[in-house]
Amino acid sequence: MDEDGNLQISNSNYNGEEETDPENNTMNQPLLKRHRTLSSTPLALVGTKVSHIESLDYEINENDLFKHDWRSRSKTQVLQYIFAKWTLAFLVGLLTGLIATLINLAVENIAGYKLLAVGHYIAQDRFVTGLLVFTGANLGLTLVATVLVVVFAPTAAGPGIPEIKAYLNGIDTPNMFGATTMIVKIVGSIGAVAAGLDLGKEGPLVHIGSCIASLLGQGGPDNHRIKWRWLRYFNNDRDRRDLITCGSASGVCAAFRSPVGGVLFALEEVATWWRSALLWRTFFSTAVVVVVLRAFIEICNSGKCGLFGKGGLIMFDVSHVEVRYHAVDIIPVTLIGVFGGILGSLYNHLLHKVLRLYNLINQKGKIHKVLLSLSVSLFTSLCLYGLPFLAECKPCNPSIDEACPTNGRSGNFKQFNCPNGYYNDLATLFLTTNDDAVRNVFSSNTPNEFGMVSLWIYFGLYCILGLITFGIATPSGLFLPIILMGSAYGRMLGTVMGPYTKIDQGLYAVLGAASLMAGSMRMTVSLCVIFLELTNNLLLLPITMFVLLIAKTVGDSFNLSIYEIILHLKGLPFLEANPEPWMRNLTVGELGDAKPPVVTLRGVEKVANIVDALRNTTHNAFPVLDGGDGDATELHGLILRAHLVKVLKKRWFLNEKRRTEEWEVREKFTPVELAEREDNFDDVAITSSEMQMYVDLHPLTNTTPYTVVQSMSVAKALVLFRSVGLRHLLIVPKIQASGMSPVIGILTRQDLRAHNILQAFPHLDKHKSGKLR
Amino acid sequence: MDEDGNLQISNSNYNGEEETDPENNTMNQPLLKRHRTLSSTPLALVGTKVSHIESLDYEINENDLFKHDWRSRSKTQVLQYIFAKWTLAFLVGLLTGLIATLINLAVENIAGYKLLAVGHYIAQDRFVTGLLVFTGANLGLTLVATVLVVVFAPTAAGPGIPEIKAYLNGIDTPNMFGATTMIVKIVGSIGAVAAGLDLGKEGPLVHIGSCIASLLGQGGPDNHRIKWRWLRYFNNDRDRRDLITCGSASGVCAAFRSPVGGVLFALEEVATWWRSALLWRTFFSTAVVVVVLRAFIEICNSGKCGLFGKGGLIMFDVSHVEVRYHAVDIIPVTLIGVFGGILGSLYNHLLHKVLRLYNLINQKGKIHKVLLSLSVSLFTSLCLYGLPFLAECKPCNPSIDEACPTNGRSGNFKQFNCPNGYYNDLATLFLTTNDDAVRNVFSSNTPNEFGMVSLWIYFGLYCILGLITFGIATPSGLFLPIILMGSAYGRMLGTVMGPYTKIDQGLYAVLGAASLMAGSMRMTVSLCVIFLELTNNLLLLPITMFVLLIAKTVGDSFNLSIYEIILHLKGLPFLEANPEPWMRNLTVGELGDAKPPVVTLRGVEKVANIVDALRNTTHNAFPVLDGGDGDATELHGLILRAHLVKVLKKRWFLNEKRRTEEWEVREKFTPVELAEREDNFDDVAITSSEMQMYVDLHPLTNTTPYTVVQSMSVAKALVLFRSVGLRHLLIVPKIQASGMSPVIGILTRQDLRAHNILQAFPHLDKHKSGKLR
Repeated sequence: MDEDGNLQISNSNYNGEEETDPENNTMNQPLLKRHRTLSSTPLALVGTKVSHIESLDYEINENDLFKHDWRSRSKTQVLQYIFAKWTLAFLVGLLTGLIATLINLAVENIAGYKLLAVGHYIAQDRFVTGLLVFTGANLGLTLVATVLVVVFAPTAAGPGIPEIKAYLNGIDTPNMFGATTMIVKIVGSIGAVAAGLDLGKEGPLVHIGSCIASLLGQGGPDNHRIKWRWLRYFNNDRDRRDLITCGSASGVCAAFRSPVGGVLFALEEVATWWRSALLWRTFFSTAVVVVVLRAFIEICNSGKCGLFGKGGLIMFDVSHVEVRYHAVDIIPVTLIGVFGGILGSLYNHLLHKVLRLYNLINQKGKIHKVLLSLSVSLFTSLCLYGLPFLAECKPCNPSIDEACPTNGRSGNFKQFNCPNGYYNDLATLFLTTNDDAVRNVFSSNTPNEFGMVSLWIYFGLYCILGLITFGIATPSGLFLPIILMGSAYGRMLGTVMGPYTKIDQGLYAVLGAASLMAGSMRMTVSLCVIFLELTNNLLLLPITMFVLLIAKTVGDSFNLSIYEIILHLKGLPFLEANPEPWMRNLTVGELGDAKPPVVTLRGVEKVANIVDALRNTTHNAFPVLDGGDGDATELHGLILRAHLVKVLKKRWFLNEKRRTEEWEVREKFTPVELAEREDNFDDVAITSSEMQMYVDLHPLTNTTPYTVVQSMSVAKALVLFRSVGLRHLLIVPKIQASGMSPVIGILTRQDLRAHNILQAFPHLDKHKSGKLR
Repeated sequence: MDEDGNLQISNSNYNGEEETDPENNTMNQPLLKRHRTLSSTPLALVGTKVSHIESLDYEINENDLFKHDWRSRSKTQVLQYIFAKWTLAFLVGLLTGLIATLINLAVENIAGYKLLAVGHYIAQDRFVTGLLVFTGANLGLTLVATVLVVVFAPTAAGPGIPEIKAYLNGIDTPNMFGATTMIVKIVGSIGAVAAGLDLGKEGPLVHIGSCIASLLGQGGPDNHRIKWRWLRYFNNDRDRRDLITCGSASGVCAAFRSPVGGVLFALEEVATWWRSALLWRTFFSTAVVVVVLRAFIEICNSGKCGLFGKGGLIMFDVSHVEVRYHAVDIIPVTLIGVFGGILGSLYNHLLHKVLRLYNLINQKGKIHKVLLSLSVSLFTSLCLYGLPFLAECKPCNPSIDEACPTNGRSGNFKQFNCPNGYYNDLATLFLTTNDDAVRNVFSSNTPNEFGMVSLWIYFGLYCILGLITFGIATPSGLFLPIILMGSAYGRMLGTVMGPYTKIDQGLYAVLGAASLMAGSMRMTVSLCVIFLELTNNLLLLPITMFVLLIAKTVGDSFNLSIYEIILHLKGLPFLEANPEPWMRNLTVGELGDAKPPVVTLRGVEKVANIVDALRNTTHNAFPVLDGGDGDATELHGLILRAHLVKVLKKRWFLNEKRRTEEWEVREKFTPVELAEREDNFDDVAITSSEMQMYVDLHPLTNTTPYTVVQSMSVAKALVLFRSVGLRHLLIVPKIQASGMSPVIGILTRQDLRAHNILQAFPHLDKHKSGKLR
């Protein structure tokens, strides 16, 4: 098998050798390969909606107009740009902080009154009424969340993190960062979390932060944009990318109250291109978020926030636990890491299957989506309410100075169906908000608070809920379900190890949660810092690092991270950082030959030809060639479809075939217009006499497109494409000869994806295994 | 002025326009521009030694041999590579941790016995003897450090961080990571720090970590390398870069016991190229360092380390301070930030001047270097011992439960010349190790421990020492001097604000130190995390972030960061991430014309021509052209100088002009040989008959060099060069015509540096000011 593979590769290389012979270049022998065509579908699943996706233009379009605009920018404008950039970063942080506070207040109050009412009936032993109220409230809240998502904004479903990751990789997904999406995400998230579903507000907050950033950058919702002059600098994909990175970091920060963790999350998980300048700016945004959160917590501590609890800046504070561990503790800690890796990858595997199944259900229509959500909500409510009856009542431990038993909204020792002086440990975990459940299971200095049977039930239930809840059509984060699952087996191990270890059981729960996160999401440094900032215990750091490293290593040996799996599932053409080894055995010339011939335009082109090119292709850019009257032998550059459409719409036609002056163009087009991305020209009617006129494309052409020589290997072309962040890469010939076109192909994101290449060149596949990073 | 500038630019652009006309291309009109030549000096100051520097080859040299080697790598070998990679990361962490412990133990014991002896004489009121012992010991230790550096390893002087930063940017500095340098750095660092000089072991530890990484990667010191087969995978600049990044992160971690801070420092300050995979690996290394440090601290806590103190994993623990701050506290905190920014940039400015002066002194010879060090040491000792006599004795505060007064090695309230029950606050800061001085000035819950006069003296002295100590020929870190200076004015402000603020004076000192670091070094996230991990108080985070952001903003408005200033001063050709705006107005074609014509070779080349090319140029690579018998019209690729030298040394000559078969090459060269970088061919004697023979360069040529079309702007070429991490960038013509060379130039790092371009094209300079990031 491996022998075969090597043989085949040698053959293909031998062909490559032949091609280096100038007498026998690839241009003359395409017949053999023409059947190998690169295909690509520009469709992907965004939220729960199938959308047409496009690539983003990060490359600076250096045409004459841009150059003039750039040169004419005064120092004042540069300062305006810098000022606006920082103001936006500030506003992103401020608004994300405010909205996060709003969501927290709403969830705590809605869920709080629900739980108080349920507690009221339970105290009177009216368990059935309690069940009806609990289930009814949860169904109602779920219904609101689902209907909003299904009717108004299908893109608001799920966490949104995979789509943001794709956006920052250069994939534009429509309606992802709009105002409707944001509002539905906020309200839907409040509803879904308050409904007690097994999902978090963390992922949605990241999406909300990104929406805020995008809306601020473009000056408001699509149809009501503020035409503020300073904002014109941000009307490009590069600055929007930076803003959205700030937004996602702010979102994580707001979710976990973890400023450094937010920055690192954006760096490690979300962003594809990173610069030191961005580190500083995202840090500024997260700092603002923290200040806002802190201010609100101060206000809430004085009791003005209704049922909002008395949390500090730290969510699950375990700083008062004295951390002591010795060489022996390395065994259970290693075990946690290994469990985390195995369970995490198993979770990824199963979730993948469930999402495929849910996709089939969701495709059947809106009613099916709503019914699916309601069924999950019903199941969740029944389990959360019913299962605590299985637990034995445990007597309160008088040596612990927390209130016991409690029957209010929160509290660590829920009385539920137990007599006074006793508590129900499962009710402590189930009949509460998810945040409080985590706080209870992390609670330290409360050894043996939870019985093993209860922990097994808790673990089992959240495994099931974690799998069935994520795919429903509501905003849903993955962090909290994983924390709940992980904390369960962590605490179990802690209870088992009780007599043999010096580590507190609450810390075991924390480590369990961290290990499952690492096993499923495969982040390391950012998770470590998030857990550090969540738990406020720096001495936990070395042990957390150890657990995370083990869990990630174990998980990586089984499958991809959950976000990568979701990206694949959704069909988002994510561009990986490392080329596959077999890409060294294919040249871009061969790849270009597998595509239809490139459509080029002349520097001064007939209108009819431009219309043809636009009508007959969906290409986003066309190489512009120059030369004498005969052959086009000079590469002038690359012109964007949007600019061609602009020319047609403005009817900037010439009667004769001539070059224009710079002022003629500047009179007709402003840089702001050219920054608009608009490529719909169905409503442009061009008369047949206009069809015979000419357009001078020179001033609108980007004269500096990136190029590769046809003998370049695909691996290195991919490195260039991905490092610089391109949308188009031109292939130029390696041989100098008259009459030859100076452009022999054009490569885009889809052409460079391993999956697509392997469909056209299946013989390369056999070498996929030997991956050398 | 600005008008002129715009005019000039328009002219130059007009020329550019003309050049796009195919009849009138740049090839035909070089006379006008030939006088503009790009010059570059391949010399830089490494440590205190002027060295010849080279660029590093990160690009994968895809020649036939490489491709064969790559293909023939089995799965086992891939696993070997991965295993070796992680083992090396583990060993880097382990050894860095061990050496850091060794340095700490040595410093604490040497300085401890010195201080004990001095304290002994002071207790007997024998102040002059005390002074003589103190000064003598310090001079002796300084002498050891300086002589080692001057005689054996001039590259071990200074912190080494700028050189590491340059290395990770692609600049190779000889003798920087050798065994001698490392040993001298270790011993010299112990000597210099124990001598009480105003310098830290932090910077040197980063360098030591990098040396360890480099030595491990190459299998030992230059002359005694282990020829372990698995190590051959690391004999390239890419893997070495990754290893050294791990090493520098481990060094920071070992210096500050700050694992996450170490990773972030490497990311934010040191590394130029960063990948997520690296984040994980550096994190692993720093985790190992922390475990080693922790193990040793456990051992030392049981008293087996001599005078080594009872420190925890946290160096300057302020976690027991309750952090409370309110809106009013924003004023002093802002003040600290502004002070930090102003003082930091002022420090950078003055240090620049001092380093220039020192450079003149150091150039005079080895004796001068030694005398300079000794003078600084003498001055330092006299001040540290003499100045405390100026302070008034303060009575011990019985409400503080620390021992007072003390007269031992460490301790917060030094008795010095005071009667019993009194302490000398300046002696507390001066007659101790630098680490203890920081600990004392950070000490919390000790309000008004230090008098204002004492703090002024402390601040003034460390400002002077901070400026005069850094440039001497010993290993010296910048972190500690800056922390000492910054903590002084922080504590002063805290003392002044005493009645009006809720923040502890110790925390003011911490914030002062942080602000000066940010003002001078301009790091943000990494500093924030380092301070977090140093002080173990997470609630300080928002306030630290705020201070750092202000200090950095203020500092940036004045000058560059200290490391960038040192990089410039040393002449290291660091490649910035962002192109200058005026680079958009220059094409690579124009830049190429300003260089001497490119020297090319034919695919099958005469030995004489190869020898000529090697003798007459210092180029590191030559384009290889192919074609019919007449014109060379096809670009085959790029061959490295080292490979040409290898061919000559091995005398792989052909009698006739023919292409070779793959097996012929493989018989002669192994991939390991080709990875060696050796370009000295003075000892190769070639007979005149051999001169007439041929060499087939095809199999050794990298067939996939990166190229740009001549009309590409320099700005975008620089983005490509820097993003992908290149050493050579070929310029290809934009026009297809027979008889034209397929390569019209070659660009290297020096050609793309703004400074060098401006020397050849001075008219672009006027636009330097309008910088738009």
